[in-house]
Amino acid sequence: MHVSDDRIARLRKFMADNGIDCFLIPSTDFHSSEYVGDFFKVTEYFSGCTSDNVDLVIGMETAELWTDGRYFISAAAELSGSAIHLMRSGTPGVPTVEAYLAESLCSGMVLAFDGRCMNLTKGRRYERLAERVGASVRIDLDPARAVWTDRPALPSHPVYTISEDLAGKTAEEKIREIRSAFSKKGCDWLFLSKLDDICWTLNMRGDDIQCNPVALCHALIGKESFHLFIQSSETDAGFRSYAEKIGVTLCEYSEVFGFLEKASVKGKILVDPKHISVRVADILKEKAELVCAANPTELMKAVKNPVEMQNIYQTYLLDSVELCRFLFRFSEKIGKETMTEMTAAGELDALRAQIPGFIGLSFPTISAYGSNAAMAHYSATEDNCAEIRPEGFYLVDSGGQYLGGTTDVTRTIVCGPLTDRQKRDFTLVVIANLNLLNARFLHGTTGILLDACARMPLWEHAVNYDHGTGHGIGYILNVHEGPQSIRWKSVPGQADAVFEAGMIVSDEPGIYIENEYGIRTETILMTVPYTENEYGRFLRFEPLTWVPIDLRGIDPSVMQPRDIERLDAYHAGVYEKISPFFSGAELAWLRKVTLPYREYCSC
Amino acid sequence: MHVSDDRIARLRKFMADNGIDCFLIPSTDFHSSEYVGDFFKVTEYFSGCTSDNVDLVIGMETAELWTDGRYFISAAAELSGSAIHLMRSGTPGVPTVEAYLAESLCSGMVLAFDGRCMNLTKGRRYERLAERVGASVRIDLDPARAVWTDRPALPSHPVYTISEDLAGKTAEEKIREIRSAFSKKGCDWLFLSKLDDICWTLNMRGDDIQCNPVALCHALIGKESFHLFIQSSETDAGFRSYAEKIGVTLCEYSEVFGFLEKASVKGKILVDPKHISVRVADILKEKAELVCAANPTELMKAVKNPVEMQNIYQTYLLDSVELCRFLFRFSEKIGKETMTEMTAAGELDALRAQIPGFIGLSFPTISAYGSNAAMAHYSATEDNCAEIRPEGFYLVDSGGQYLGGTTDVTRTIVCGPLTDRQKRDFTLVVIANLNLLNARFLHGTTGILLDACARMPLWEHAVNYDHGTGHGIGYILNVHEGPQSIRWKSVPGQADAVFEAGMIVSDEPGIYIENEYGIRTETILMTVPYTENEYGRFLRFEPLTWVPIDLRGIDPSVMQPRDIERLDAYHAGVYEKISPFFSGAELAWLRKVTLPYREYCSC
Repeated sequence: MHVSDDRIARLRKFMADNGIDCFLIPSTDFHSSEYVGDFFKVTEYFSGCTSDNVDLVIGMETAELWTDGRYFISAAAELSGSAIHLMRSGTPGVPTVEAYLAESLCSGMVLAFDGRCMNLTKGRRYERLAERVGASVRIDLDPARAVWTDRPALPSHPVYTISEDLAGKTAEEKIREIRSAFSKKGCDWLFLSKLDDICWTLNMRGDDIQCNPVALCHALIGKESFHLFIQSSETDAGFRSYAEKIGVTLCEYSEVFGFLEKASVKGKILVDPKHISVRVADILKEKAELVCAANPTELMKAVKNPVEMQNIYQTYLLDSVELCRFLFRFSEKIGKETMTEMTAAGELDALRAQIPGFIGLSFPTISAYGSNAAMAHYSATEDNCAEIRPEGFYLVDSGGQYLGGTTDVTRTIVCGPLTDRQKRDFTLVVIANLNLLNARFLHGTTGILLDACARMPLWEHAVNYDHGTGHGIGYILNVHEGPQSIRWKSVPGQADAVFEAGMIVSDEPGIYIENEYGIRTETILMTVPYTENEYGRFLRFEPLTWVPIDLRGIDPSVMQPRDIERLDAYHAGVYEKISPFFSGAELAWLRKVTLPYREYCSC
Repeated sequence: MHVSDDRIARLRKFMADNGIDCFLIPSTDFHSSEYVGDFFKVTEYFSGCTSDNVDLVIGMETAELWTDGRYFISAAAELSGSAIHLMRSGTPGVPTVEAYLAESLCSGMVLAFDGRCMNLTKGRRYERLAERVGASVRIDLDPARAVWTDRPALPSHPVYTISEDLAGKTAEEKIREIRSAFSKKGCDWLFLSKLDDICWTLNMRGDDIQCNPVALCHALIGKESFHLFIQSSETDAGFRSYAEKIGVTLCEYSEVFGFLEKASVKGKILVDPKHISVRVADILKEKAELVCAANPTELMKAVKNPVEMQNIYQTYLLDSVELCRFLFRFSEKIGKETMTEMTAAGELDALRAQIPGFIGLSFPTISAYGSNAAMAHYSATEDNCAEIRPEGFYLVDSGGQYLGGTTDVTRTIVCGPLTDRQKRDFTLVVIANLNLLNARFLHGTTGILLDACARMPLWEHAVNYDHGTGHGIGYILNVHEGPQSIRWKSVPGQADAVFEAGMIVSDEPGIYIENEYGIRTETILMTVPYTENEYGRFLRFEPLTWVPIDLRGIDPSVMQPRDIERLDAYHAGVYEKISPFFSGAELAWLRKVTLPYREYCSC
């Protein structure tokens, strides 16, 4: 019996009692967060599937779960033995949730979703499709309330502020800029539900979502008022007086809906339809004209200011030093001492924890040996954890939250003998990674074009990876942020963001062979000016991550001379940046693993 | 005194008489055609500017002309001495037409444009912006009617049909598929104004636009009716009986507006807002619900059928043979006999005219020596035409219309000594061209990603070209067609087309140094299947053009070994395809200019 059987049976009873034919449950919270607190893990509760990007559709006799390519393998394992059918999003022949609902809903049926957990863009689409087939929609029911009896409480952890020498800009300045931005769009108000945007605005941090230093909150910003909806249990006297000083009125988190219903909001209100819930939108649209556009905070937050940049460079350096140290120790132990995915991750996490300003991990360390690394977001547990043996690859994707930045890095380590195919694939990923790292591009370039740099070298060999090439990264905030991203297809209806100097992006191509191995090389890049001439303003990238790429995995026969030059140049940088922190055996190791490739081969 | 002075003065009088403050005149016809018949060359009449993509905005005291990067240099020359201000579209600091109008229109003012010559997308935008500032709009005035006294007549040339062994599909089949496509979108009607789409549908060709074998027409397609609006002077008895046989009712071209006003069109009508005029839309919206989407014919036309493909391969081969012959003769004459841009073009055009099935040129041959080639769409004339001397570059961009396909090709020929910078630039363009030609990509890829293949090698050296990398090409139709294109930025509000097997695209990077030289290498590519595996369906390109790239322009120091391998592979293909057509001195020349690069250098 699968954990989902009984839970879904109880949900169906709840649905029958309420006349619901179909319940759509997304894996998000009231803020369209990518990662959520335990209270919000409703899809996981019902399905047992731990993926972060899930849509669960429960009918009276059917149960379907959509997730994306990062989770195909893990979700299939988790759903094995259940009555839930896995829908691999984006795979040929698999309908979208919308297409599926359009097909399965009939006239007179009732579709339900929790209007607090559904963003406006998607919610309106579902409402329209229900209308087209003559079905009705209920958005006032929480599918978990009646069923999930031991549901955890709403997360509630104290918030704190970060000082100006960390933030680089005061909350007052940011609020002024935000007011100017929404005024320019002819708006009188801005409603923000996006947690990292609000935390960025107020130079505030929290701890309500694992690895994401944010607090559950909403903000209603007028031309002269600022209401922050936050659990009073999260704010202390210091924060309350800070809020008062910067002109922010604190209101109880749970009362946001009631407050908005009574609030004297008029004129035009800017809302980001991807980050505001249907429930909030339904209230606001009765009072003001909704102007749908990206949150102005999104771009402001993504372009790091000089103080942030300086801290980020230093933080990534220290983070790189500890990952290098981990790689050194790993190289000493492999084949000699017993290591498991868990012990290795534990050792790396402990090294990070010693870095000054360490707050916590920026995501749970992915420590994956052999075929486990083929699952893009594999998570080892004490009960289910491989031993790392002296053959094949070990992949480690990890990062930290520090008072100075948020890091993310992946390296794939050669543990011992490799097959020719493994070497070829490892080398293709390195070529892809370095190709993007060395890109120069005109201002105006978007992530789709940049994606070609990483993906083309793999496509040449008819290989692909089922995830994006790069995502933005927050500053002491979420490890994934927009608006920039590097991927090969547009998100329909979403304009692709232009890269600006000061934006951070990951560069993480990979190759995954199910049941065999997984390879990913991820370096974080800062967008910087390159040159300006009659053609316009050119940009380039500078690596923030300085960690060796394992030269034992290289197959020089698939590389062009320039690929090797780029590899050597990156390694020269690694040695220059990291060597001042090392001595003795560590330094000797670093010297060797960062040698120019030809020299490395001859020693 | 500039030709525009008097004409614009008379237009202003006409504007004053009609209470118009600002007249917006685009360079298109009633069909949003890219190229137009002489009757429609209104912007050229008023400004003297021959660019194809122009917006002219005439105020009572101001005159501004927008055009794109292809025409910056030629337009500046043509407007020199006039009171018209050149607005270089897309250049930093230059407002769009819309932004300019939003700034210059005030409450109570009247903006005019000819509603027949303005597509729905743009027209509605102008109407909205006028409304925002309190201005009004008139769309019922033709700015030329009262002023252009010696205006040419509407073009009128006989139409003809192409046989099934040329078309590969009957008009009846195409009409069935079109009806099925608009029905699937829930529509009862389709209104087509796009000339090449209508000609493709009916396997009909005409001659109303120079180099574009199309006839002026509109089509109203219902589920059981098909009305073709065409000048009766263009149809003969044969065509009329063909029309009757395939169920097409012929109506007079000039009566389309009156017909639509009275027609019993009901329900939903599909229209492409980029290819239907405001005037037609205003009539139709009173009768039916407009469903705005791309014309279903666009994609059908772009994906060539097997018969078309076979003809295209053969036609491009014969076209390549004659261009090779031209290059041979050019190489014999340069430095020995006098050649001008005009004599060279004349010789090439004459060679093409001998190819079986020749209809005419697909565009006026661009024959440009030295700095003239820096003007992307330079046109030599008897009066203004350079002599081709034995130094620098000569660029020739040309193509033909044949009963078997539409061709387009550019080669840049080394006439004699080059500077280092010239060699580097020539080589970068070759690398870019071959990089795209050799791309392999997953189905789902759009032109923005592919653009990186061509543009990145140039951007690496901080060089760019101010035009797209590739456009679709019609079949015995327009030399530019969509939906596919290869460019580095999206067109706002327009979804980027996915490449499909059977689509043709040009591959034409270039480098232009104003007042010095211009380089472009253009090879036409057919999209074909590459391989299919667990990652999906991969596509690649196959060249249709087989013409040598001038090895004297190569600087091997900026090439990777793979770039040279690709160049050699392309030249091996050229020799294999073209040599059967050559003998004697021509064959010896071909052998030499297609040798592997290293071998070429050593002989």
